[in-house]
Amino acid sequence: MRRATTERFHTIVVGAGSGGLTVAVGLARLGRQVALVEAAEVGGDCANTGCIPSKTLIELSRSVARRPPEQRGQAAREALAETRRRRDAVRAHEEAMLAELSGIELVRGRARLARGERTTPAVLVEGPDGRERQLEAGRVVLATGSRPVVPDSAGLDAGESAVDGALTHATVFDSIAPPAHLAIVGAGPIGCELAFAFARLGSRVTLLEAADRVLPGEEAAASELVRERLEVLGVTVLTDTSARAHDAAAGTLEASRAVAGAAAEAITIGAVERVLVAAGRRPASQGLGLEAVGVRLDGRGAVIVDGAYRTTAPGVFAIGDLVGGEHTHVAHAHGRRLVRYLTVPLPLLPEGEHGRVTFTEPEVGQVGPTLAELRRRWPDPILAVQRVNLADTDRGLTMGLQGGFVQLVALRFSGRLLAATVVAPNASEILPLLTAARRRGLSLWRLHRLEVPYPALSEAVRMAADAFVFASLPRLLEELKAYARWRWRRGPGG
Amino acid sequence: MRRATTERFHTIVVGAGSGGLTVAVGLARLGRQVALVEAAEVGGDCANTGCIPSKTLIELSRSVARRPPEQRGQAAREALAETRRRRDAVRAHEEAMLAELSGIELVRGRARLARGERTTPAVLVEGPDGRERQLEAGRVVLATGSRPVVPDSAGLDAGESAVDGALTHATVFDSIAPPAHLAIVGAGPIGCELAFAFARLGSRVTLLEAADRVLPGEEAAASELVRERLEVLGVTVLTDTSARAHDAAAGTLEASRAVAGAAAEAITIGAVERVLVAAGRRPASQGLGLEAVGVRLDGRGAVIVDGAYRTTAPGVFAIGDLVGGEHTHVAHAHGRRLVRYLTVPLPLLPEGEHGRVTFTEPEVGQVGPTLAELRRRWPDPILAVQRVNLADTDRGLTMGLQGGFVQLVALRFSGRLLAATVVAPNASEILPLLTAARRRGLSLWRLHRLEVPYPALSEAVRMAADAFVFASLPRLLEELKAYARWRWRRGPGG
Repeated sequence: MRRATTERFHTIVVGAGSGGLTVAVGLARLGRQVALVEAAEVGGDCANTGCIPSKTLIELSRSVARRPPEQRGQAAREALAETRRRRDAVRAHEEAMLAELSGIELVRGRARLARGERTTPAVLVEGPDGRERQLEAGRVVLATGSRPVVPDSAGLDAGESAVDGALTHATVFDSIAPPAHLAIVGAGPIGCELAFAFARLGSRVTLLEAADRVLPGEEAAASELVRERLEVLGVTVLTDTSARAHDAAAGTLEASRAVAGAAAEAITIGAVERVLVAAGRRPASQGLGLEAVGVRLDGRGAVIVDGAYRTTAPGVFAIGDLVGGEHTHVAHAHGRRLVRYLTVPLPLLPEGEHGRVTFTEPEVGQVGPTLAELRRRWPDPILAVQRVNLADTDRGLTMGLQGGFVQLVALRFSGRLLAATVVAPNASEILPLLTAARRRGLSLWRLHRLEVPYPALSEAVRMAADAFVFASLPRLLEELKAYARWRWRRGPGG
Repeated sequence: MRRATTERFHTIVVGAGSGGLTVAVGLARLGRQVALVEAAEVGGDCANTGCIPSKTLIELSRSVARRPPEQRGQAAREALAETRRRRDAVRAHEEAMLAELSGIELVRGRARLARGERTTPAVLVEGPDGRERQLEAGRVVLATGSRPVVPDSAGLDAGESAVDGALTHATVFDSIAPPAHLAIVGAGPIGCELAFAFARLGSRVTLLEAADRVLPGEEAAASELVRERLEVLGVTVLTDTSARAHDAAAGTLEASRAVAGAAAEAITIGAVERVLVAAGRRPASQGLGLEAVGVRLDGRGAVIVDGAYRTTAPGVFAIGDLVGGEHTHVAHAHGRRLVRYLTVPLPLLPEGEHGRVTFTEPEVGQVGPTLAELRRRWPDPILAVQRVNLADTDRGLTMGLQGGFVQLVALRFSGRLLAATVVAPNASEILPLLTAARRRGLSLWRLHRLEVPYPALSEAVRMAADAFVFASLPRLLEELKAYARWRWRRGPGG
């Protein structure tokens, strides 16, 4: 392996996903010379294997489900092909945008950090042709994202493509046709979203989840509704159930189901054509030579950073999934903030709570902790919980909506919003308001004055705030006492 | 006619629509004795002939349009029947709620104000049995809403039911089946919404509008897109065209079309089964004896009120469409504010700009003036206009969206939001954030920090703010100069 001479840049960005692109493009627009290193495709998980193809397929699957049965097979294949077309269009668009920007050099290959001539580590890139390049810069930004966790079980290791081994979200969109029977291991956001999509495309779907409910990170009422909807679509949902082994030749998936107060029960699921592993993601912090240059990781493998995304190594920054961000919009926010910091090195404002949405039916949105988490962190009597069912809003009525709700959790008396849950067909459009309210420390007294055009589902937000106000007003003194007791115990910073 | 003795209440509310119900229920919950006078159905226009049936039919018509042609006729009749069922369910729900509240007496009949024993006028109610009751109270709240404007032309006067004369939004939902050919006079919000609904139900629809575009009160780009969508659905759109006469027997509608620089062209539209008049609404201020007790009207027939909804007659208040509110959520807001004022008679905070949404495809939402109005009111160089197409957001891409946009208009430099337009499938859920931002005087510098879960169409709001920030930053001094010049000319209150 020959090594060329050292190439110098203002900044080296490792990873061309949502976070890395944001930093590279932001700095290049400000006139900096940036090297953007990417081993796979520009666009990262989001554009290539994550949000873009999954949300496209979810959208297209709805119209497939409406077709007469005899047309569904062909329509499903077309939906998968169209999903790939839109994904490739996004990638082409992003590559074209990069090519246009004079300040960015896209360096293809695997990056590894090493001590260089400066304090800031050098980045060695092994290109597809086997040649290694040595890049140096005043700052290195790591944005390598995350990788699917694949269980270490027989037949459940991920294949390299859509045709062999277990599928992951990285390969599933390359399927030419929906499998006759798809077993999905893991009912987190990705597992649930794809269970809806493939069930609508015509696959028989079996969804396995080790926890006692689907979407175990969300409000229990949301999990219940999503499970009900999955079952209406014909998905077999097995909770408390872990996959053990998959025999592709026999088409069987072995699993074990926890039974309260008894030995686990062994289950064999037959006639499984493909298995999709969606058992979570972990930061892609391996193989980068991080330890060698002093970048420290936490117990989950995430890179440890401070409020300005500085790692423990000088001149090295990290953002996005790699630091535990877990969402495209979080990586994007990190990238924007880091550009600000690298340009104007004053302290950044606190990052603020991030919202999240799972694109199931209905969509499940959350900002702030779930109620169960809040009850662990706060004394229960200080929490005011208001839930409004969407069926009780006038828009819900005109839509004939069944299920779905808005839940606001606030401090009693002061009404400060601690958390909000939106389970609605368009939760993703309702959440930004609540994320902004949460970040600005708004109270339900203020949301009580929210104007919602009539009729919209967002009315449920105002109705929940109304309920808080009408419950608090007649007993204001009691509410104040409850609040003051807690304030006094916790001190003003509580 | 016998007159009973005078009955006394804390408050008399005339009109049991959105505004009147809000006041009556609000006061009753606070322990006041309220008389609620209603000549027609509880729920007012919104529940009986407005938002509830129209939004229900719009929703149901979508699935009718997806049916194979041979099933559409039956499906359309079912959609109309289901619309009536949901409308009646809302009415029954509201009547039951009223019956439960001990503080409200529902008085059926037509109200007329007259000088009584007190300063506050008395309310005389002629009941359906011909008996007249005389009600008195310390305060009278007028909430009689508005009535459709019906042109004074042959055959275009509204019938009393769905079977004869021209239809209005008050009678159209009683149709048993969609007309084979429906001519709609007026392409404002109601005309456009119902054009979509009936076209999807299978009617041939001709839409006539005297102005040069549909939705003439909205942004021109919104009008253009809505017209395009109407035409794709097969609706014939005739702008610059006024209906002149309808001959029901011959099935012809005579109209005249303005031609630039020439005489108007006469048009005859044939094979018209029904005509729906949707030529606007005017405040229902007639026949209430308002003049006799000193309640003054403006030129448009709206009751003149001050910031606390006080009319020019002592003890008489007016809210909602009757004062020019024009939207259910505005009447509701007036009602809530008036309850506050009647309970705690301190000055109210300013009402704040109201948003509005038309439920076409896509929905058209607006808060603040249109760009054309702003350009009349502000010197053009001080306005910063940013428009982002939804097709350029990632959610738009995954949805395969064509058309639709978010437009923000702000002051240069300060970035204060003056107006926002959202033309999107769920504009009604995106607008509350922008209405709140407009009311709180937020700037695009702040909306630039908005967090939107990925991928959601609301990203266009942040992208528009981004565009403002990136355009302003490199030329901040120039922007400041432009802003200061204008400030200096207008003074700080400008």
